[in-house]
Amino acid sequence: MRVVRYRIRQGSPGSSGWGLLREERIYPLERAPYLVFDGGAALPGAGASLPLAEVQLLAPVEPSKIVCVGRNYAEHAAELGNAVPGEPMIFLKPPSALIGPDQAVVYPALSERLDHEGELAVVIGRRCRNVTEAAALHHVFGYTVANDVTARDLQKKDGQWARAKGFDTFAPVGPWIETDYDPADRLVRCWVNGELRQEGTTALMVYSISRVIAHIARFMTLEAGDLILTGTPSGVGPVQPGDLMTVAIDGLGQLSNPVVAESSIGGFEGETNL
Amino acid sequence: MRVVRYRIRQGSPGSSGWGLLREERIYPLERAPYLVFDGGAALPGAGASLPLAEVQLLAPVEPSKIVCVGRNYAEHAAELGNAVPGEPMIFLKPPSALIGPDQAVVYPALSERLDHEGELAVVIGRRCRNVTEAAALHHVFGYTVANDVTARDLQKKDGQWARAKGFDTFAPVGPWIETDYDPADRLVRCWVNGELRQEGTTALMVYSISRVIAHIARFMTLEAGDLILTGTPSGVGPVQPGDLMTVAIDGLGQLSNPVVAESSIGGFEGETNL
Repeated sequence: MRVVRYRIRQGSPGSSGWGLLREERIYPLERAPYLVFDGGAALPGAGASLPLAEVQLLAPVEPSKIVCVGRNYAEHAAELGNAVPGEPMIFLKPPSALIGPDQAVVYPALSERLDHEGELAVVIGRRCRNVTEAAALHHVFGYTVANDVTARDLQKKDGQWARAKGFDTFAPVGPWIETDYDPADRLVRCWVNGELRQEGTTALMVYSISRVIAHIARFMTLEAGDLILTGTPSGVGPVQPGDLMTVAIDGLGQLSNPVVAESSIGGFEGETNL
Repeated sequence: MRVVRYRIRQGSPGSSGWGLLREERIYPLERAPYLVFDGGAALPGAGASLPLAEVQLLAPVEPSKIVCVGRNYAEHAAELGNAVPGEPMIFLKPPSALIGPDQAVVYPALSERLDHEGELAVVIGRRCRNVTEAAALHHVFGYTVANDVTARDLQKKDGQWARAKGFDTFAPVGPWIETDYDPADRLVRCWVNGELRQEGTTALMVYSISRVIAHIARFMTLEAGDLILTGTPSGVGPVQPGDLMTVAIDGLGQLSNPVVAESSIGGFEGETNL
């Protein structure tokens, strides 16, 4: 099934909800479906269905944390002059960076080099710690598409990547969670303005999804709803304000986000601008 | 006022709540107090008071993210052979690392060098983005005591610090949030088994609390309840299973946590052990 979060286009701001997507209609759910994953119970419905065209899709996750894997495709590690690490290389993006399909990625005034990084993302379905590789996939609720947007210049300058990968809007995710999906040997592709920039199959991951989950759960508890970004294939490169980034993964979905300049959304206010 | 999160010792697991602490009694609150900070409204009470002795204090925060500053005291940067960075150096700890007063820090089997890092922590009271240094402190709800526990060997090995600083139990915080507190020129101290290891005043911070908040809010939205760890003074060093770490900040409070070996809490299960 395809799980979405959405907001009714004509509704009051903040009236978002969870739903199932079937044949261009949304069937509302009472709560995040991974919260009822454990029992395997039927998902509780919450009212009449509505047409997909009447809603704005949001990032289909509300994670307590976003855990990412760096340099998990050998060609990508090489293109930035890095070695493949001896075990999965882990970093975090803050939940405040999340945006949904078609929402704008803001090119920060602080950066002069913004890169796309198309990735397969895993949504955890059940709290886990110290899980074996063999059992890891039993804790997965589903899969979605992500773009690990990166200010490459700040990544090099800062050493730690929290800022370079942590700006608001630097974690586009969606359009939905697909729960019936085999992620083995799937093409991950990324286009900028329709031009193919990245293409690589998940079969090329240095560390498998099972290995990555087992590695992370060796030191931190993964909660239901947590998101894992599994690394980007080769072909990363810069985008500019006005560009459209599109990440697609075979059999899973397609995620498009425009890039806008920070100056276009209002400058420094001295107070919140959200 | 002093704000606590607590669990009634005899209650069913999971029955935690927020409260105000006055003269050894807890006055329950209906919800996290920073959620009503904006209106300045009176805090909504929720039932009769109870003695402090009848509750277990928990970490007094439920943050959407924990943002930390590295190398924010010159002597500490120097003791690890690092330069003071040209602007605040930011990294993240996952919320899954949080524990409260007197809860055990688990010494991981994966590490051979675990260090204490006593720090002043800031609790955000109101969502903010692009706030000026001059306005930054208006967005603070209060202050608490933290220990940025670090697997020093993994920190050096990994490059990114998400694992070395992100293990479950590596973020002891508490015992309460003090809302009426001036953090200027306060001694931050850390003892191990009663022996003083760290001592430094907040006046020695390279980047002030206002500067740190303004720096972070230049790239990520800070949410009410988010936690900022402001860096550790010099004197960091190793602990062993069986040790007791105590961090105290003048006029704010004292946070003690024992260290236990991972092997003492049960080994690798192949399934969740939580």
